[in-house]
Amino acid sequence: MPAQFALINGKQTSTISIDDRGLNYGDGVFRTLAVVESRPKHQEQQLNKLFADCERLFIPIPDKTLLRQEIALICSQLTSEKAALKIIITRGKGDRGYRINPNVEPTRILAVYPWPEYSLENYQQGVQIRICQTKLGYNSQLAGIKHLNRLEQILARHEWQDAAIAEGIMLDQENRVISGTFTNIFLVKNQRLITPDLSLCGVAGVMRQIILAKAHQQGQACEIRTVSINELLTAEAIFLTNSLIGIWPVRQLASTIYLKEKRDLYYQLLYKFLA
Amino acid sequence: MPAQFALINGKQTSTISIDDRGLNYGDGVFRTLAVVESRPKHQEQQLNKLFADCERLFIPIPDKTLLRQEIALICSQLTSEKAALKIIITRGKGDRGYRINPNVEPTRILAVYPWPEYSLENYQQGVQIRICQTKLGYNSQLAGIKHLNRLEQILARHEWQDAAIAEGIMLDQENRVISGTFTNIFLVKNQRLITPDLSLCGVAGVMRQIILAKAHQQGQACEIRTVSINELLTAEAIFLTNSLIGIWPVRQLASTIYLKEKRDLYYQLLYKFLA
Repeated sequence: MPAQFALINGKQTSTISIDDRGLNYGDGVFRTLAVVESRPKHQEQQLNKLFADCERLFIPIPDKTLLRQEIALICSQLTSEKAALKIIITRGKGDRGYRINPNVEPTRILAVYPWPEYSLENYQQGVQIRICQTKLGYNSQLAGIKHLNRLEQILARHEWQDAAIAEGIMLDQENRVISGTFTNIFLVKNQRLITPDLSLCGVAGVMRQIILAKAHQQGQACEIRTVSINELLTAEAIFLTNSLIGIWPVRQLASTIYLKEKRDLYYQLLYKFLA
Repeated sequence: MPAQFALINGKQTSTISIDDRGLNYGDGVFRTLAVVESRPKHQEQQLNKLFADCERLFIPIPDKTLLRQEIALICSQLTSEKAALKIIITRGKGDRGYRINPNVEPTRILAVYPWPEYSLENYQQGVQIRICQTKLGYNSQLAGIKHLNRLEQILARHEWQDAAIAEGIMLDQENRVISGTFTNIFLVKNQRLITPDLSLCGVAGVMRQIILAKAHQQGQACEIRTVSINELLTAEAIFLTNSLIGIWPVRQLASTIYLKEKRDLYYQLLYKFLA
């Protein structure tokens, strides 16, 4: 479905110049927020992540007050109970060539999309996932950033057509578990919560950050470290997170089926972190 | 400078939808052609490379006759002696999310830019180059393709502001020499021509392909293999290639200065390959 409504640099339009570096080089960052009853969820964490990602790519941070006003404006016009709000900040219209022109004004795109109606079963029964062949390349300067260079995720998502499989797990060059194609991953082993280290590749999502912060607050340690496929296969439970889905428990990975009782136990714990 | 004239899917316009996957994910490929007296240089090699890159990303190849007609049309309208023609093929307007919708029509962008007036000195005296800190990540599925995910090159190009330095050399994760930020690299060692292997990262440019093919035809072997920084520093000569610049000899890398006589000797040889 195309964007239902968009504001670009404050103007209601849905096109950008072909000279925008977002198109030419994937030179920008983005966020996808859940909007419920016209209120964006976790707005401050989302904006902080957006601004931090801009800084890492040397993209000037947009006027924060203006951006918040635009978010409020676009959300106030929503008629549906739920929607997805995508915010893209590109480096702006530039000259041909990779050099960053410091005088270029970033492009600020806010676009509303219909809410993706995920099956209730995904939450109640858990999802089936697979391991992708497409590997994530290392680049510590880009690791963690939600930037517009997403061909690895596209190739990974293209590996399967089976609608019964909800997500694919991506490994790095040394076959360590990093994330799903559009989710972060948590596992439980020996009653400990673990999530992969993302210092060399992957996207450090806001939902992951919130869970890590809340776990810490509540004295439930979460290890951030390298994770092997074998650990995933022998985990007590696995969960996938992102800002739109929230948390999906995993029912099955390849031929491994995770026990419903354990999954439910930890699912309740994680869910409380988001309250 | 912005595009002077553009055709998008055959229509004269210079904007694309914010739903285009080229913007959202860098989901597309591109080519930059030199146009001299309204004739695109190496057009068939350029189009073959464009189509091959599309295939590797599962992007439907555009109608070849139509694309050639559009190139002829856009070039016939040029009034300057030289220009740069950029051709971008994106996967097209898609739904939110990484999944490839097989029904989506690719977006075909042809845009004319002013010719970049490179200094004659670059050709006659050679250029000064540096080694970049930003490393290229490995991904054999993306290696060689001129795709729209170019943040690594942008970060590398952002490392220096000194206008005296014409190009930066990019290394891979194991510090092997791969290419410049916008050029391919050739070196001469023990009178043998060498260019880095690009099977794990880098862009296999058309100018590089042409030189390799011509060298082979003329019985002048060129080794394609891994290249160390030390080999670069101790080379008899180094050359940079791309479709707009043609060939630049390298005068200086860090404190190493390459001898003009040797440089000129091999420069003549390489130049003949392009005739």
